[in-house]
Amino acid sequence: MATDLHWLSIAEAAQLIERRELSPVDLVDACLERVEALDGRLNAFITVLADEARVDARGAADEIANGSYRGPLHGIPVALKDIFAVAGAPMTAGSLIFRDVVSEEDSEVTRRLRAAGAIVLGTLNLHEIALGATGINPHTGPARNPWNTGHITGGSSSGAGAAVAAGLCFAGMGTDTGGSIRIPAALCGIAGIKPTFGRVSRRGLLPLSWSLDHAGPLTRNVEDAAIVLQVIAGHDAGDPASSRADVPDYSATLGEGVRHRRIGVPDRYFDDGVDADVQAAFREALRQLEGLGAELSEFSPPHADEMPGALAAIMLPEAFTFHQSAMRERPEDIGEDVRYRLELGAAYPAAEYIQALRFREMLVETWREEVFGEIDLVATATTMVAARPIDQSDLSTTLSLIRNTNPFNLLGTPAISVPCGFTGDGLPVGLQLAGRWFDEATVLRAAYAYESVTDWNSRRPPL
Amino acid sequence: MATDLHWLSIAEAAQLIERRELSPVDLVDACLERVEALDGRLNAFITVLADEARVDARGAADEIANGSYRGPLHGIPVALKDIFAVAGAPMTAGSLIFRDVVSEEDSEVTRRLRAAGAIVLGTLNLHEIALGATGINPHTGPARNPWNTGHITGGSSSGAGAAVAAGLCFAGMGTDTGGSIRIPAALCGIAGIKPTFGRVSRRGLLPLSWSLDHAGPLTRNVEDAAIVLQVIAGHDAGDPASSRADVPDYSATLGEGVRHRRIGVPDRYFDDGVDADVQAAFREALRQLEGLGAELSEFSPPHADEMPGALAAIMLPEAFTFHQSAMRERPEDIGEDVRYRLELGAAYPAAEYIQALRFREMLVETWREEVFGEIDLVATATTMVAARPIDQSDLSTTLSLIRNTNPFNLLGTPAISVPCGFTGDGLPVGLQLAGRWFDEATVLRAAYAYESVTDWNSRRPPL
Repeated sequence: MATDLHWLSIAEAAQLIERRELSPVDLVDACLERVEALDGRLNAFITVLADEARVDARGAADEIANGSYRGPLHGIPVALKDIFAVAGAPMTAGSLIFRDVVSEEDSEVTRRLRAAGAIVLGTLNLHEIALGATGINPHTGPARNPWNTGHITGGSSSGAGAAVAAGLCFAGMGTDTGGSIRIPAALCGIAGIKPTFGRVSRRGLLPLSWSLDHAGPLTRNVEDAAIVLQVIAGHDAGDPASSRADVPDYSATLGEGVRHRRIGVPDRYFDDGVDADVQAAFREALRQLEGLGAELSEFSPPHADEMPGALAAIMLPEAFTFHQSAMRERPEDIGEDVRYRLELGAAYPAAEYIQALRFREMLVETWREEVFGEIDLVATATTMVAARPIDQSDLSTTLSLIRNTNPFNLLGTPAISVPCGFTGDGLPVGLQLAGRWFDEATVLRAAYAYESVTDWNSRRPPL
Repeated sequence: MATDLHWLSIAEAAQLIERRELSPVDLVDACLERVEALDGRLNAFITVLADEARVDARGAADEIANGSYRGPLHGIPVALKDIFAVAGAPMTAGSLIFRDVVSEEDSEVTRRLRAAGAIVLGTLNLHEIALGATGINPHTGPARNPWNTGHITGGSSSGAGAAVAAGLCFAGMGTDTGGSIRIPAALCGIAGIKPTFGRVSRRGLLPLSWSLDHAGPLTRNVEDAAIVLQVIAGHDAGDPASSRADVPDYSATLGEGVRHRRIGVPDRYFDDGVDADVQAAFREALRQLEGLGAELSEFSPPHADEMPGALAAIMLPEAFTFHQSAMRERPEDIGEDVRYRLELGAAYPAAEYIQALRFREMLVETWREEVFGEIDLVATATTMVAARPIDQSDLSTTLSLIRNTNPFNLLGTPAISVPCGFTGDGLPVGLQLAGRWFDEATVLRAAYAYESVTDWNSRRPPL
């Protein structure tokens, strides 16, 4: 069994650990060996905390041996995108600007993961300062797709996509400002959920755009996503946008299916220009959801075309405001594509930003009434295209990656990506399901039901 | 007694009305006669609703005769700055752009005043779209100061200052984005309170800068201010910024004095460049407060110098965003000074606006801890200068009017202005008292205690 430890799900590993049939020490060793063997090719990690992880694993093993089992993350190896603070470790954000910053304290997500017993293996590669969807980072190099290492993983949580898909860790923590959890999840053939805005604390994260930033997990299946989200969700006074809404027991309702759930399929925008293989996989996924008893209908998505423009008018000025001293003092240390985007952010007049904020308020009310008043979930392809070759990924690639994810950042609704097939070239395709604000439970349940009748997440990349 | 009806306080008139010794019909007639006699000189009103007011007065008289007395505003004549919607009346905002707009519904403040039995006499002059502190409006003409009609009233609630000071009505509703209630109160020798941000609903008001706009009353004394604030304060779902904080009974604690209250006097910024007469009156007011048992101390006001700049970086872009179609389509219909300010608003980059928002958040925390952690109230002169001649009021006048009021808009704390003396030229001077967020009760109590040992508010302008 030892050779396959890294392919267990969190739920499976947790059962073995709880029954003391598996030691966190062996599990961490299995992952660290896998990192050692593969990360030279994948470039998923920025900092590997091997010694610390081994110490923590022994601590967890002792605790469990002494009868203090904390729950399903106890002893489970995880890693975090390198913009989550991990006490004592560098938080580079994949940037030369922050290269020498060592975090004094854990981020709130890191803290909650540790409190639940998870073992932190290290920090993960990302698009520079999380501002980009390809994951091609001029300073750290691109993370590489486990399904074809000549291809991108998608970003900005690029290392999380690669690490989880390749079995280097069991969960990768990501952030999602315009799609940065769902895009690498889709392109790497794993699950990734962006929770409702305000659901998970951003305390101790480097901000990109504080009114659009979300934190959430990438995992190999939906059950694992529910387990991790359970631990990290909930109010934190340290994040001004953090919600006080109650957090339900996600795992308890996960198996309740999708019967009679009303799933809306947008009749425009979200399928304009979708790649044929992606579209075929998405359409087949809709048929399977219907077969599970979901009630599908088409709807007209209000103001969809205006949403990426409005998102940019909020994200780019907020990002520039945060990074402006670096832009002024060390522009040569910022990669070309990120510098270009920050320059765009500097050029926005205040009135366009303010109008975008007001548009967002109007949009939330419109979708609340007109869309989520009628349906429970929205289904789309996560991205228009599968993972492109690294040397052919450009601005048009970026636009086809973010087109379908952007709207749910502006809306702030929860949205998950789960694998729904492969292209003819053997690259994964993602299905996106978005739900009502703070109703992650329904999103997870539908994704779990869908996943249960497919075997996409049992396939392993050819590494 | 009939000749002096217009000089009664609300509290006095209410007692007479409740005892049926005074009819709202006579009170409204007295005010309308006064408007007729004086408003040609004062230019305080934009629309006089004489017929409607007489009908409402008869209705109130009948209701009271039938034993249904509603409370201290029942039958009291009031007027509202012409950016509060009054159903069926024009809401011009003193602008050619809105000249033909007739309100379909009452603003929330109008509605609450009517529900308390107040009689709406009409709408009041203001600085064009409320964007200016002199009250010199090129379209409606300047409101004129009752103490010297060659002088400004201060703005932007210029008509409210003139109308209340001259006895044309018992309360004038104003708005205050950078000082627009407190400035005309100070320059016209009356009381004016800007409540805490979120305390009074702005539903049905033309916005200037929604994150800085406050609504509140101008009255001839503090007791009357408490009576009116009681009626208009409290949550309204129609204003997204409206607070759910409880509203205490202001009148109940009004007489509890200022003994042992800690009043902080800023040791810089707020007295830089104050006119000598103003400074003398302010210093004497401090001595009187000390005589009443208040504990005075000096303190260093954090970031005071940066506050007007930050306020402008929020107010001007928000104002431009709201008025940009008018600026594009009808610039010739906008007065020169307002057009200039809106052009400034258009020129702000988003990053400066965002930085100002963040500065404001920091500022609130700093003042909450460092200032209001140590003292209960801040005392300053309301304005640096008394009312200037209309033909000598320019940008430097504006700056000396807004310097001391601006900070409390950015902070969002309650702040009142009450008369504290006269210049050698016989023009009123204002004392500003600012308190903790949602602690209007302490502000009103201190102002009331001070007022009780002075006779400034018993003087009448030479009309």
